[in-house]
Amino acid sequence: MSERTEIASLGEFGFIRRITQPFTLKNSSTIKGIGDDAAVIANEGKQTLVTTDLLLEGVHFDLIYTPLKHLGYKAAVVNFSDIYAMNGYPKQLTVSLGISKRFSVEDIETLYEGIQLACDKYGVDLAGGDTSASVTGLMLSLTCIGEVDKDTIVYRSTAKENDLICVTGDLGAAYMGLQLLEREKMVFTGNPDVQPDFSGKDYLLERQLKPEARKDIIELLRDKHIVPTSMIDISDGLSSELLHLCTQSHTGCRIYEDRIPIDYQTAVMAEEFSMNLVTAAMNGGEDYELLFTVPTSLHDEITTIEGITLIGYMTHENSGYRLVTRDDQEFDIKAQGWSIEQAINK
Amino acid sequence: MSERTEIASLGEFGFIRRITQPFTLKNSSTIKGIGDDAAVIANEGKQTLVTTDLLLEGVHFDLIYTPLKHLGYKAAVVNFSDIYAMNGYPKQLTVSLGISKRFSVEDIETLYEGIQLACDKYGVDLAGGDTSASVTGLMLSLTCIGEVDKDTIVYRSTAKENDLICVTGDLGAAYMGLQLLEREKMVFTGNPDVQPDFSGKDYLLERQLKPEARKDIIELLRDKHIVPTSMIDISDGLSSELLHLCTQSHTGCRIYEDRIPIDYQTAVMAEEFSMNLVTAAMNGGEDYELLFTVPTSLHDEITTIEGITLIGYMTHENSGYRLVTRDDQEFDIKAQGWSIEQAINK
Repeated sequence: MSERTEIASLGEFGFIRRITQPFTLKNSSTIKGIGDDAAVIANEGKQTLVTTDLLLEGVHFDLIYTPLKHLGYKAAVVNFSDIYAMNGYPKQLTVSLGISKRFSVEDIETLYEGIQLACDKYGVDLAGGDTSASVTGLMLSLTCIGEVDKDTIVYRSTAKENDLICVTGDLGAAYMGLQLLEREKMVFTGNPDVQPDFSGKDYLLERQLKPEARKDIIELLRDKHIVPTSMIDISDGLSSELLHLCTQSHTGCRIYEDRIPIDYQTAVMAEEFSMNLVTAAMNGGEDYELLFTVPTSLHDEITTIEGITLIGYMTHENSGYRLVTRDDQEFDIKAQGWSIEQAINK
Repeated sequence: MSERTEIASLGEFGFIRRITQPFTLKNSSTIKGIGDDAAVIANEGKQTLVTTDLLLEGVHFDLIYTPLKHLGYKAAVVNFSDIYAMNGYPKQLTVSLGISKRFSVEDIETLYEGIQLACDKYGVDLAGGDTSASVTGLMLSLTCIGEVDKDTIVYRSTAKENDLICVTGDLGAAYMGLQLLEREKMVFTGNPDVQPDFSGKDYLLERQLKPEARKDIIELLRDKHIVPTSMIDISDGLSSELLHLCTQSHTGCRIYEDRIPIDYQTAVMAEEFSMNLVTAAMNGGEDYELLFTVPTSLHDEITTIEGITLIGYMTHENSGYRLVTRDDQEFDIKAQGWSIEQAINK
């Protein structure tokens, strides 16, 4: 049986020491991490990037099928992804936790193991946070600080007409992984003796439970001296992110259904669920791939890079946001609706 | 009757636009605020400070007696206070919100009015955030970015033996304000026809509901070219913060009961509640005053500054943490206990 230490038994500072002690500083810019009123970061001629995320139990994650270690890993990576989406590099992370009595010290240590794994992999320092009691469940609020060279920073608003639209990796798998977990949860809840059957679905589960940020692509573009004209990471789904780039850059767009990169397992799963595969890829979300634009002059270079797919191009602001299907029909791209109710009732 | 717009009716981005639209950028270092994957901050030869706070309904605040505007103001100021405690200046703020269906757009606008008032008063830019549905109530997670000259940054760990211990303002009033609000809440809950009687208690209520950070003191010390040898802000109570300075600086301390600055209203209230006044001032918390140390050579200069009180001095590491009472007795200073249970059951 695993150990269970009550959080209250360590006291506030003992508890914080215990969960943060395994973290060591990796960046010379981290002058001071945990342990004072604020973290201190040196910054020589670079620009600082800041992004933040709030994750709530029952809204953003379900602990029935999300191991705490994976939750910590994903929460961190999702923030790093926002920094890469500005063509920057994440350097420091703060983690604030609201914890209910249900959780032991060991539980939170497991969560932090995931955070540490992500910090180690992406070279980020844990630099602070806040820990408090929660009445209801677990909540995480993460803020990531990154740095970027001011000459290579990439905004959402700077795409130009005719620029090529590119995405990394493949889309829709994380969403299919979520559907799969939700289905098995229902089966399991109905009959606890049934063991979930995830064989051959490992890629979908990994995309949902342990996503990665595309540090590799940002490094690769840097090495090739390619600076995208606009960029965003795909957290809410391709449709939604594409509309962000277009509205902020004052362009239209035209993308091709048959160009959208989709993994084989995603397609099989969509078939099994009788879902529209393109809808899943366009609106699924949580892919944490990068969506970016480059000038047409880079066509030959960008299309030869593995892991990057050209899916269309930017058009004039008045030309609309268009998806061209396999049979040459054209549809308007719309972002999926969002509502507080929807999120709560999920 | 006041208007009530459902948050869902505006959509995610419409809602964010509406609540953040009144904020304009004030700092030239804020290259990009809201609207991209991350905020962008320029930083020329300064060091960046980062601090974060998580505030949960039912744990950190009670909306029965906390107006939303005050909550927003206080949440922001509390973070600014941490930056001043490093001898720095707050510049950017991110605000993440978890919102249940109970709250309307107007409610959240009122909360943001308070945040804006604080940002305007302290010259801080709203630079980002995250908004999401919550199943249970309101939660706020704020992160403040500040800047400091690397030659004048003040840590907790750099006090020396014999340094003078100073506090700003007076202590215990915010705690008494809380006791007062809790009492009137109970009276009110028992008999809703009774109107709370707060006459002559305005200072206590203001200290609890609308605290200020000591920007004025930081500016004054700068103008006088005084750099404290260590500093911390008083959020958990004088005892707890003093022990932080001592343990991190490897010193002991000796402070004098009759030197602890206490307002007249605080004393009257302690009498009314039959509470020990010194205990309230030492352990009450939420004063957001500054506790700092200076070398003995500054004795004459520091004691003539209005709003700063000399309460004792640092001693050798092995001399303990001592409070000398009015009748010359000595007691060990202990930080009040902390427990998740305590906080939840509050």
